[in-house]
Amino acid sequence: MNVTVHGRTRHYRTVTFDRAHNAVQLIEQRLLPHEFKIVATKDFRETAAAIRDMVVRGAGAIGATAAYGLAQGALAFRDRDMKQFSAHCAEAYQVLEAARPTAVDPVNAMNVVRGVMRAGQTVAQQQSLALAAAEEFANENARHCEAIGRHGAKLVRNGMKILTHCNAGWLAFVDVGSATAPLYAAQARGKKFHVFCDETRPRSQGATLTAWELAQQKISHQVIADNAAGHLMQRDEIDLVIVGSDRTLGRTGEVTNKIGTYTKAVLAKRHGIPFYVAIPLSTIDWRLKSGFDIPIEERDESEVLGAWGVVDSAERGVRSAESASPVYVRVANPTSGARNPGFDVTPPELITGIITPAGVFKPKELWKNRRRLGYAVF
Amino acid sequence: MNVTVHGRTRHYRTVTFDRAHNAVQLIEQRLLPHEFKIVATKDFRETAAAIRDMVVRGAGAIGATAAYGLAQGALAFRDRDMKQFSAHCAEAYQVLEAARPTAVDPVNAMNVVRGVMRAGQTVAQQQSLALAAAEEFANENARHCEAIGRHGAKLVRNGMKILTHCNAGWLAFVDVGSATAPLYAAQARGKKFHVFCDETRPRSQGATLTAWELAQQKISHQVIADNAAGHLMQRDEIDLVIVGSDRTLGRTGEVTNKIGTYTKAVLAKRHGIPFYVAIPLSTIDWRLKSGFDIPIEERDESEVLGAWGVVDSAERGVRSAESASPVYVRVANPTSGARNPGFDVTPPELITGIITPAGVFKPKELWKNRRRLGYAVF
Repeated sequence: MNVTVHGRTRHYRTVTFDRAHNAVQLIEQRLLPHEFKIVATKDFRETAAAIRDMVVRGAGAIGATAAYGLAQGALAFRDRDMKQFSAHCAEAYQVLEAARPTAVDPVNAMNVVRGVMRAGQTVAQQQSLALAAAEEFANENARHCEAIGRHGAKLVRNGMKILTHCNAGWLAFVDVGSATAPLYAAQARGKKFHVFCDETRPRSQGATLTAWELAQQKISHQVIADNAAGHLMQRDEIDLVIVGSDRTLGRTGEVTNKIGTYTKAVLAKRHGIPFYVAIPLSTIDWRLKSGFDIPIEERDESEVLGAWGVVDSAERGVRSAESASPVYVRVANPTSGARNPGFDVTPPELITGIITPAGVFKPKELWKNRRRLGYAVF
Repeated sequence: MNVTVHGRTRHYRTVTFDRAHNAVQLIEQRLLPHEFKIVATKDFRETAAAIRDMVVRGAGAIGATAAYGLAQGALAFRDRDMKQFSAHCAEAYQVLEAARPTAVDPVNAMNVVRGVMRAGQTVAQQQSLALAAAEEFANENARHCEAIGRHGAKLVRNGMKILTHCNAGWLAFVDVGSATAPLYAAQARGKKFHVFCDETRPRSQGATLTAWELAQQKISHQVIADNAAGHLMQRDEIDLVIVGSDRTLGRTGEVTNKIGTYTKAVLAKRHGIPFYVAIPLSTIDWRLKSGFDIPIEERDESEVLGAWGVVDSAERGVRSAESASPVYVRVANPTSGARNPGFDVTPPELITGIITPAGVFKPKELWKNRRRLGYAVF
């Protein structure tokens, strides 16, 4: 999507490949929203470190990064010996896989690249195929998000006020995003609307990443406390909710997403407000038979007990010298602990529709449409 | 309630009067939870400033502070001339009233003191009555909260997990608190339970004040993100919800409280979890006929866009020299704005009961019990 730096606007993807330098180029997401910076990893080990250290995050984005990383590793090989080349590529695969062990996208992405490479007979052919496959993986990710946008844009009408939660934006994919895709597509069709971004405690991805994205795209928006949506719904100030998902069960239509999503779905149901979930096909889990089988990660309590931000002394009339770099502040009582479930599960009866690249479906209709939706059991 | 400072535990009220020095003593609440400090105001102007600058906050606490402040003003008068004394007291009244112009409690409290004073014939008699009336006002506030505790403690059973929102604790009153009163009373009866404190963004009074209170009283508790309660309810981890109220409509049973309360009530209803509101009688508004007539304060957007906390460099292995004083950090995207409604209204059908000093009532039963509940229209 577009980013304006020093008054100049140009299009960026979250991850691209620089053939001339055999480098993966990434938006340094840990600095957002306070600073926009592109970093280049010089080899597959640096690319793995960027995944591990969350320079890049989001299922689609780390999938594409791992695909490029594997191609980068392959291209760095300087010999013709196929056996050594295979061993070298296997090492790159393992290092990239180990960067985020619980994520499934890097592995799926690298498996695609590895499968395409096998059609090559020589090192040079396999190197060329690796890069072509990685590029195609990234392009396909962007096309799928664009397709989500085409289907979802029809739901966005002029003058609507739309709530979103967390960041299922282009920063989490290669481009366009999932929950944001209908917004960007509606904007491209000339529609005017307003977005409320749940700040999404404890990690505040709504206040930081989604708000940054919408500001860059010049979409009217405001950040709200996670506590505020219920009141806004009571006062008829929200017309539509669109969120993303980390895992959607194809058999049941249950949606796992960032903690707080379930709460918004319950509120939307009470107020008769349409609640949509936008997902790429890779998010659908065709295996699990119940939402209670989805493991809910309990994250570190420090996230709940404090916040990350940039010290702003402007309120007191003093501008801090260190104002650019975010720091962690302890907000809560120092002798108290916290519970920090990272995700929750929203049942299908609260969901109006699931927006996919293949169209919009009722959650209970995913299973009977599974052939169109890339049904696969890993 | 009890506070442990440097290993020594003693009982404190949020506001007390020091006759020897004609000073109002207050817990400096702006430093909590990071530092516990008692400050003494040397005259009624300093007492007014303490109310204005939020050294003391919470309806009951600022009411008692204003009552003591008026007595403090009266006692500072060094002459016998009744006319000059009346003018002097009127000035103190006005200065204290202007400290928090939208609050009703300081005015109600001072009207009580002024009414009692009128029984005195001399300056000395009126001074003595002023202090006695202020002390009685504070004592009554504490007794009412204790009565809330007696009625509410019956709802707390061994092993329960209880959710509360914001701070309706003893820091907001003279002692004991409203929503916390049943917890403290249940603890005194030997019951064991666990409390989840909603952090209560944007001002985080749950993470700061309620968590501090419960830690001081050694009640098992954890802070949670406001997003987490829905998930915990889904997993049967919450048995009871108790919150406070800033204004409860006696005619309809609608409850105004800190933003996010309505959301928790909707979730509790869905999960069949009892949802109680604990209030002193002064919180009941007998005049308004509809929750839509309650003005909802839109507060400054900086509260949503950032957070107040103590810089904690321990994560990076460095302990900051300034670690004791809270700073404001900007969390959100710097070019984004925010909406910040401060309160919301919960309808009576979501409320299991209202815990008052006169007993527990269904919200719709307040009106027919109005004589017992201090019915008054101001």
